[in-house]
Amino acid sequence: MDVADIAALHAEILQAAARIKGVAVRTPLLASAALDARVGARVFIKAENLQHAGSFKFRGAYNRLSQLVGAERRSGVVAWSSGNHAQGVALAARLLGMPAVIVMPADAPAVKIASTRALGADIRFYDRYTESREAIGDRLAADRGATLVPSFDDPHIIAGQGSCGLEIAEQARARGVALDALLVCCGGGGLVAGISAALHVESPATRVYSVEPADFDDLARSLVSGRRETNRADARSICDALLAPQPGEMTFAVNRQTLAGGLSVTDDEVRAAMRFAFAELKLVVEPGGAVALAALLAGRIDVAGTTVGIVISGGNVDPGLFAAIIEGA
Amino acid sequence: MDVADIAALHAEILQAAARIKGVAVRTPLLASAALDARVGARVFIKAENLQHAGSFKFRGAYNRLSQLVGAERRSGVVAWSSGNHAQGVALAARLLGMPAVIVMPADAPAVKIASTRALGADIRFYDRYTESREAIGDRLAADRGATLVPSFDDPHIIAGQGSCGLEIAEQARARGVALDALLVCCGGGGLVAGISAALHVESPATRVYSVEPADFDDLARSLVSGRRETNRADARSICDALLAPQPGEMTFAVNRQTLAGGLSVTDDEVRAAMRFAFAELKLVVEPGGAVALAALLAGRIDVAGTTVGIVISGGNVDPGLFAAIIEGA
Repeated sequence: MDVADIAALHAEILQAAARIKGVAVRTPLLASAALDARVGARVFIKAENLQHAGSFKFRGAYNRLSQLVGAERRSGVVAWSSGNHAQGVALAARLLGMPAVIVMPADAPAVKIASTRALGADIRFYDRYTESREAIGDRLAADRGATLVPSFDDPHIIAGQGSCGLEIAEQARARGVALDALLVCCGGGGLVAGISAALHVESPATRVYSVEPADFDDLARSLVSGRRETNRADARSICDALLAPQPGEMTFAVNRQTLAGGLSVTDDEVRAAMRFAFAELKLVVEPGGAVALAALLAGRIDVAGTTVGIVISGGNVDPGLFAAIIEGA
Repeated sequence: MDVADIAALHAEILQAAARIKGVAVRTPLLASAALDARVGARVFIKAENLQHAGSFKFRGAYNRLSQLVGAERRSGVVAWSSGNHAQGVALAARLLGMPAVIVMPADAPAVKIASTRALGADIRFYDRYTESREAIGDRLAADRGATLVPSFDDPHIIAGQGSCGLEIAEQARARGVALDALLVCCGGGGLVAGISAALHVESPATRVYSVEPADFDDLARSLVSGRRETNRADARSICDALLAPQPGEMTFAVNRQTLAGGLSVTDDEVRAAMRFAFAELKLVVEPGGAVALAALLAGRIDVAGTTVGIVISGGNVDPGLFAAIIEGA
């Protein structure tokens, strides 16, 4: 499949949705009177922090791994990840009875490391800023005869994440709602590519925007320039899940066709969004999972009087960091 | 209506559900693979912390207030509450355009006081351990010609909370699931009375249990003795929402017929449940909202191999307390 063919990708998303049906959580599309009042719009929240292993990543991982058979399944998988893809792959591997090795940055949140280990995966650490996770992963996979499972630049991963977009379209229809816009977080771009491809077919009038941390706005700049821009090597953000250096090749081939634009938010806006989610939504949201809410609350696009969706993509956050943020630090 | 007539109460619950339809949130019935694995049962979580104003209380309040008309509506309402009923009444009053005065304990969580005030209600404080909120409320209501809205001992309040039980029954049916047991928190007993009455008719095979803080287990003891027992005056708990001195007259008339038994949990078990909800469910749960989850995690009843529901009743908790609890204090 050529992911840049949006109709073909949509067909693949339908197949992915069938594969994960009854295995992944069909997460709720929530509403909040407090949020509506705050932003002057009708807002619907796709709560992927309520997905298995605490983020949307299980969708793509299970879609990919469930298609491995025979010797491939016995040899298992290798993945690199800052934490959420790690947990998604580890859980999918456990459910499917295959071994998994995960290459994780040494500074990944402790909760993500512990959770990945508890799910039965072997972990290999690397330095996020000096080592190449790709090189480590390639070598590990070659040594073990294992299948490498990319965190975003893979048609089956993108299609699996796209199942979240199908659900949004179905759940909006079931409520008699038409979404004018939808805001989705973006690291490597797999989630927003899958969701935007799904909505491109299911709800073509919905304008889909990516949201990135301010110093990791490679996709926003790439959408403007038309080529894959990179972030500065010294860029930092509390959004540990969204620190990709540049758009994926496949994800950008989708996103350049399907997105209405790219937004970005500061870490302080992310903290404010996490506090709002705690106080008003009663949801535990990790920094990277809060950027779409942050963009909405910060008024990055004019939503007055419209109907808008946001994706909360994950809730895997260390208690110490969460405590500091809700107490206003 | 005689609330002790369960069939009549069920009919009233159906009417309440029709009144709040499209106004209250139809909260999701969630599942968690992590929770299932932990307790060895299939668990469904009714997340009433996602209700408007952060707890189930809006259901009963809106059902009661929406039936006030003419001069009654203009004179408004008076209620006493430790916080969640306060917010539920304040929001319902604002939506219906009527004034509200709320009598709150001076030591209510700051977040509940601030939120009640933000919803436009006037607040009158009292000392939880030395003053009578009933006497203060009665006098305020008489002075203003206002309607007193009890927090649990009122047929319309019980019926409104019962709408939560109807939803649980409907949502379980929609998933093809039969609940063997359902655990519901209990302060004055309005929520568990409404829910158990709904299930008594909708799902008679489901055994419904109340869950209380250990030193506020008046209902558990009353179910055994057959009469309304009281708690010691020096009893304390972090479950601020569940500190009723004894079962309500009306709620006990229901609960003595509908409940399979009464469970109780310690404050430490409640803290552990709040940590579990943070780490695994990604939900913000207040102490009183966590007692059913706490009873499940602490093994208060044997659920191995069964299908069980729990109600998470609210998520209004001060950031400082929440932070201390998730950090293990």
